[in-house]
Amino acid sequence: MTFTDSDHRYMALALSLGRRGMGRVWPNPAVGCVLVRDGRIVGRGWTQDGGRPHAEVVALAQAGDSAQGATAYVTLEPCAHTGKTGPCCDALIAAGVSRVVVALGDPDKRVAGEGLRRLQAAGIAVETGLCEAQAAHDHQGFLLNRTEGRPMVTLKLASSFDGRIATATGESQWITGPEARHHVHAMRARHDAVLVGGGTARADDPSLTVRGLGDVPQPVRVVCSSRLTLPTQSKLFATARDVPVWLCHGPNPKPQNVEAWTEAGAELIEVPVIPGGQLNPGLVLQSLAERGITRVFSEGGGTMAASLLQAGLVDHLVGFTAGLAIGAEGTPSIGAMGLDELPEATRFRLHELRQIGADVMHHWVRS
Amino acid sequence: MTFTDSDHRYMALALSLGRRGMGRVWPNPAVGCVLVRDGRIVGRGWTQDGGRPHAEVVALAQAGDSAQGATAYVTLEPCAHTGKTGPCCDALIAAGVSRVVVALGDPDKRVAGEGLRRLQAAGIAVETGLCEAQAAHDHQGFLLNRTEGRPMVTLKLASSFDGRIATATGESQWITGPEARHHVHAMRARHDAVLVGGGTARADDPSLTVRGLGDVPQPVRVVCSSRLTLPTQSKLFATARDVPVWLCHGPNPKPQNVEAWTEAGAELIEVPVIPGGQLNPGLVLQSLAERGITRVFSEGGGTMAASLLQAGLVDHLVGFTAGLAIGAEGTPSIGAMGLDELPEATRFRLHELRQIGADVMHHWVRS
Repeated sequence: MTFTDSDHRYMALALSLGRRGMGRVWPNPAVGCVLVRDGRIVGRGWTQDGGRPHAEVVALAQAGDSAQGATAYVTLEPCAHTGKTGPCCDALIAAGVSRVVVALGDPDKRVAGEGLRRLQAAGIAVETGLCEAQAAHDHQGFLLNRTEGRPMVTLKLASSFDGRIATATGESQWITGPEARHHVHAMRARHDAVLVGGGTARADDPSLTVRGLGDVPQPVRVVCSSRLTLPTQSKLFATARDVPVWLCHGPNPKPQNVEAWTEAGAELIEVPVIPGGQLNPGLVLQSLAERGITRVFSEGGGTMAASLLQAGLVDHLVGFTAGLAIGAEGTPSIGAMGLDELPEATRFRLHELRQIGADVMHHWVRS
Repeated sequence: MTFTDSDHRYMALALSLGRRGMGRVWPNPAVGCVLVRDGRIVGRGWTQDGGRPHAEVVALAQAGDSAQGATAYVTLEPCAHTGKTGPCCDALIAAGVSRVVVALGDPDKRVAGEGLRRLQAAGIAVETGLCEAQAAHDHQGFLLNRTEGRPMVTLKLASSFDGRIATATGESQWITGPEARHHVHAMRARHDAVLVGGGTARADDPSLTVRGLGDVPQPVRVVCSSRLTLPTQSKLFATARDVPVWLCHGPNPKPQNVEAWTEAGAELIEVPVIPGGQLNPGLVLQSLAERGITRVFSEGGGTMAASLLQAGLVDHLVGFTAGLAIGAEGTPSIGAMGLDELPEATRFRLHELRQIGADVMHHWVRS
């Protein structure tokens, strides 16, 4: 299919609208929709916080009667199943749009081409594949959830020039600067969940919330602790009713902690362990995907980072590098990986590179 | 003093000409000179390979009679002492230039304002300080040699995302890609000497020459080995007559190695050790400065890197980072530094950031 420059512009707009929902719409995909009639944009929509209403419904409501005969640009195949509201493809048919351009098919078993078929059956011109690569990039978390039963994983590590995340005495807060930390909050906000290992939770007493960005939906805070040995004198414990805390643990968690954390409002998730006693990272992610999580932001520490990388579960690798050296006594950003030979290592491709404040941000994607 | 836009342009040109000599003119500074008469460039010169002739002499020869009444833009105060040729300030006077604009005074005891004074005494208008910061940056190695008795030090480390320079089994050659390696050769060529620790020389058998850039002057190859335990079955040993090899060692070097390396053409330099048995890094650099070296390019390994950083002797920190993780079993890019608290760490300021091939190059300068 060939598309015009205008088609590309409208779909690019729909994609940028869709991205507004990232981190706010799980378990749904963050879709964008633009309605155009006679060269004029008559409706713009994106999936709303919590996942409803869908982008198409928002755009149609904005367009009103102007939707009649319009072209709809949608970043993901319109849904064909009836959830809390009727399916989007029926809404598009009812509104009288004459053409629907779709970036990417929806692999969800309940949709999987049915949306497109129903539109065509209603006599609407349906075209697919416009800006497909960008749409696949934006919807990666949703797609992985549906096709591989796991969320997309971004692993972020803030380190010194020599890849250390803390000094020998455990200092870690001020390696990178305030601009980098602010950027990390913005990245957290675009993910459904933040994930750290128990060591980091114990060492840093992090709150793992999004701060400094106004009143935004907070990602779920997930901590892995195989024996559930997390301190109840902690920010996570104190705020577990305000922002969800999910604790992944193995068999035989510390009983008084089970009770205390449940009481505090945390959700406990049992996950099988691997030889060595660590939680199976693939099954941790699977349990998050089953609960609807599509985008996970892991902030380490080194053991969690190594575990995710070793299992081939990292899709995006984001480094913040500061201009100082800590030396070999410092804590490594990535723990032992059991890598014997270089060709075994997963190669990542540079996606974005920029200076943020005094630090360097380098964002890599799995190649 | 106020300078015109034209003044700035001519001095910027002189600076860029001067940089052509970097790594090729030690023990002299890499100076540039532009002669301008009636708005026309009549002479351009830079210090030639080996340090002679000086930039001013080259530019004057090119200008011939047109130097009469011209303005000379020189990136460093013209010399006033008689070396192999007469002093440059006398040459400028003899050629009849009417104005000399100088970026930076020469701290060399034999010059130190004498060049400027002699020009003024001859009735020439002398102005200083144009593009002074850039000139100080370009001449940093020469200035440090004259003021602190040590060369400028660039520390380059090529590592994985997590700051590892080799796997547990010692693989290190292919962490970064061919474009990054080519860039490293270009960086070597702009330094007077390449410096590595004995561990790196033993592990990698490097040749430390500039390759892939045509017929360029080669930097001196300096290896630190406190007991002079370097293998004579090595590229450095085999080529020590082709490109200089200087070996810094402590007291009581391995006697048969002293003989073998001397025989092979290497220069042996004895340097005091510090508690722990390592060579004193400040005295290593001092011994290089005494031999005329102004710009040193250190390529590690981790022990050498830590030693230089710990002593506060690194002026430029250059990282090449690849998009793969090696994990904590790998060799750290920077060894133990004895750093207790973060505020003790030297902070570097980002100077340049770019993608080179598949890797990231980040260049920091001491702030």
